[in-house]
Amino acid sequence: MAREGGRAGRKQRDETDGPKRKVDYRNLKNPFTPQGVFSEDEVENLHLTALRVLSELGIKVMEPEARAIFKAGGAIVDDATMMVRIGPEMVEAALSTAPKAITVKAIDPARNVHMELGMLHFSAGGGCPHASDRLRGRRPGSLNDFKELVQLIETFDALPTQTAVVEPQDIPIQFRHYDLKQVQIANSTKVPFVYARGHGQVLESFEMLAIAHGLSDAEFRKNPHTFTIINTNSPRMLDIPMAQGIIDFARNGQLSIITPFCLMGAMAPITVAGGLVLQHAESLFGITLSQLVNPGAPVMYGNFASSVDMKSGAPAFGTPEHVKATLGSGQLARRIGLPWRTASGSASNMGDAQGAHETELGTWAAVLAGGTYVVHAAGWLEGGLTLGYEKLVTDMEMVQTFAELATRTVADEAEMAFAALKDVEPGGHFFATQHTMDRYETAFYQPLVADWSNFGQWTENGALSANERATSIWQERLAGFTPPVGADDRAARLDDYIARHKEAGGSFPPS
Amino acid sequence: MAREGGRAGRKQRDETDGPKRKVDYRNLKNPFTPQGVFSEDEVENLHLTALRVLSELGIKVMEPEARAIFKAGGAIVDDATMMVRIGPEMVEAALSTAPKAITVKAIDPARNVHMELGMLHFSAGGGCPHASDRLRGRRPGSLNDFKELVQLIETFDALPTQTAVVEPQDIPIQFRHYDLKQVQIANSTKVPFVYARGHGQVLESFEMLAIAHGLSDAEFRKNPHTFTIINTNSPRMLDIPMAQGIIDFARNGQLSIITPFCLMGAMAPITVAGGLVLQHAESLFGITLSQLVNPGAPVMYGNFASSVDMKSGAPAFGTPEHVKATLGSGQLARRIGLPWRTASGSASNMGDAQGAHETELGTWAAVLAGGTYVVHAAGWLEGGLTLGYEKLVTDMEMVQTFAELATRTVADEAEMAFAALKDVEPGGHFFATQHTMDRYETAFYQPLVADWSNFGQWTENGALSANERATSIWQERLAGFTPPVGADDRAARLDDYIARHKEAGGSFPPS
Repeated sequence: MAREGGRAGRKQRDETDGPKRKVDYRNLKNPFTPQGVFSEDEVENLHLTALRVLSELGIKVMEPEARAIFKAGGAIVDDATMMVRIGPEMVEAALSTAPKAITVKAIDPARNVHMELGMLHFSAGGGCPHASDRLRGRRPGSLNDFKELVQLIETFDALPTQTAVVEPQDIPIQFRHYDLKQVQIANSTKVPFVYARGHGQVLESFEMLAIAHGLSDAEFRKNPHTFTIINTNSPRMLDIPMAQGIIDFARNGQLSIITPFCLMGAMAPITVAGGLVLQHAESLFGITLSQLVNPGAPVMYGNFASSVDMKSGAPAFGTPEHVKATLGSGQLARRIGLPWRTASGSASNMGDAQGAHETELGTWAAVLAGGTYVVHAAGWLEGGLTLGYEKLVTDMEMVQTFAELATRTVADEAEMAFAALKDVEPGGHFFATQHTMDRYETAFYQPLVADWSNFGQWTENGALSANERATSIWQERLAGFTPPVGADDRAARLDDYIARHKEAGGSFPPS
Repeated sequence: MAREGGRAGRKQRDETDGPKRKVDYRNLKNPFTPQGVFSEDEVENLHLTALRVLSELGIKVMEPEARAIFKAGGAIVDDATMMVRIGPEMVEAALSTAPKAITVKAIDPARNVHMELGMLHFSAGGGCPHASDRLRGRRPGSLNDFKELVQLIETFDALPTQTAVVEPQDIPIQFRHYDLKQVQIANSTKVPFVYARGHGQVLESFEMLAIAHGLSDAEFRKNPHTFTIINTNSPRMLDIPMAQGIIDFARNGQLSIITPFCLMGAMAPITVAGGLVLQHAESLFGITLSQLVNPGAPVMYGNFASSVDMKSGAPAFGTPEHVKATLGSGQLARRIGLPWRTASGSASNMGDAQGAHETELGTWAAVLAGGTYVVHAAGWLEGGLTLGYEKLVTDMEMVQTFAELATRTVADEAEMAFAALKDVEPGGHFFATQHTMDRYETAFYQPLVADWSNFGQWTENGALSANERATSIWQERLAGFTPPVGADDRAARLDDYIARHKEAGGSFPPS
């Protein structure tokens, strides 16, 4: 799907009924100069203070194997208190081996995701216990919701990954990773997320992906084919599943993204600078573990720092402090030179103006911060407790707009239109000029949800809000969904594996 | 209203019930590095092509006096066709005398507005024929709507000007400027807008403002106290009221902002580059007229360029093309070095996710483009056909967030919170630490409309959207409104002037 080419191409497409305008929303490059909030000196101080947290205060590591790895790598480890302290030289060594560019291989090579500073990838919201839409209401997430959302995501080129959109609570936890993988493979060729829920689930997920890709385990390990988000248990704690995740992903050459969950005023200091010191320390700590396990293993810096409502402790998004923390995180990511993940999101309970405001602010911050991978950019309601189908659709208007902004704008003779300006009389219009006729079908982005009809027409059509109009959009996309070529076969290859493992009792996460 | 100061100040405020957090939302400085979409060469080519439009194609000028001024200034003028062509040297001369910094004096000096590249001012939407709110519905704008909106704007520090929010259609056009001025003066000390509706209305508005300020006409002319927006009749036409406006504002030392109305694909070429060539040519033309009338007169560059729906011709906002045109306009404004006005807005028919999306995209573009004065940032629905009370309130959440982002973020020892990080056990929380206790009332922006309660509470409270919640916010602000000290007296000083002029028949705009 390249941008519209020459005349021949245009002729051909004229014979079909589809849209004339074709755009490439894949592997976007960030069109903006990264912005920050701190001076260079302040960024350096934040980095040094984070190193001081790691060497003087340390991190509590619950997993014995992880402590052993740290100890072997030169850390000061107290097994009684589980505290691990690491010196700046260990962090620096890790940063020197952590890759600056990572290509995560998708089943369809056209959907490979290249992670490097300067690239810009968006993802739908993830990790939501509930799903919600206007027809069926708010409900605990189910495997059917997960499947529908995987399909919906598959229809949007500007979403290059398959995240863990909703938690399928109707599937027992020990079997969940099998069904998630089956659904992802059966409906998508995009890079899928794997939850770090202990050795068993992670390694089995790798095996299933290797089968789907048609690779041996050794071949699979040669490149990243999946990724996980490692949420440290801020402040200063790394639990067993997360530590095992870092270890397994590093050992097997898969991508882990070390993302402390720093809500300023709750699990992190109430100041942006304090929140970022904690985030930076914890992320550097996870990156160090990854590189101790396997120097050169794919690992990314991660940011999830926002403010909370100090009356209720509820997380907030799109706030000035959220924006500032995101911009500051970008400065820290550039300080260490790694590709990095950041997050948008909304605390709104519905897809209204608040929901749009919060997601737009959060996403603009992420883009301006130079985020490589911007998660929760579409669909997140209630601070991630619910994935809203309509919210996903309305947010995609924004994501697609960013994708459009990532395309080059040209000012050559033809685009400057001097001849057209000469053609049109003063006070006239450009509707009928050749310059317009040549371009009217392709010049402008075609909106997904926006209704530009006048007030009378809009009222006649039922005075529907964008949130209401979004319902028919996801319905139509799901009704017209066709899995990618070969997806059925790839999913079928997993049947036997999954049946055997389910019969054997599945795999429970460690507590 | 300065940022919270020392202990003494805090003690005093603790004795009151008001919010502890005080912020200064006035005369903001743009915190971002200006962004663009074109290369430097392309910007130069756009500028040169605009100059070519002015010298080779020319602009149709309906007002004979304006043609005479151009002719005296060296332009090639054809009175039969009304076409005026000007050479690059005339434009360069105008740019050399146009001021780079302009302070518009308000009745309250604390509300003076400083226009210069790097400053960032927002305004509510303006020029709307209709007003709308959830209680009274959509209706033709009235003087009462105008008054309420002036009062509402007065309550928001982040809106430093009083724009022509709605058109009071219940007042005959020949009297409208009297009542508008009376209402502005009676309810606000902010810099008020004056419509350029011919010599009579403009000069009488200046007289009324001089009376309100207590200045002689000569004293009034020494500084700008008001401003107007000059919309050229794109493409390439300047009508009689607009030309008279440029002349009168320049002669009397008041600020005119030359803002072509370039809807790409309709009144301007369908390409961003073509739209900007036309905009730039027309704005430079108006700036040149201003400086021919009175070298050094306050004048600003203006941008209003967006795309249209090519099916209906309806204007669109917050589109990728709108964002790109805004960013490109900033590059052209910096090329000529003048402070400049740009615009946000929404084509949505209600304050929903579409409305928020469009205004947020448009406003982010304006801020990143380095716009000095960002108009239509709050309240615009239907592409400016309606000013929505609720939309104004929900948009102010965004405007206030930008005001917050314009404040400096610090990363000193206290903010980095190493001591607090040491205090809190791994896995603990920061709610009760001294670092949090010292700051919890003031650390975070307090939202205007956002509801961060959980889904259960929100449902119990009626499951209201942000648009619905905004109703009580404007109601409360209007119910509690008190005019600024002295406003009644100043307004009363106009009574006699207005009564005399109304009795004399008022002042009709030229056609």
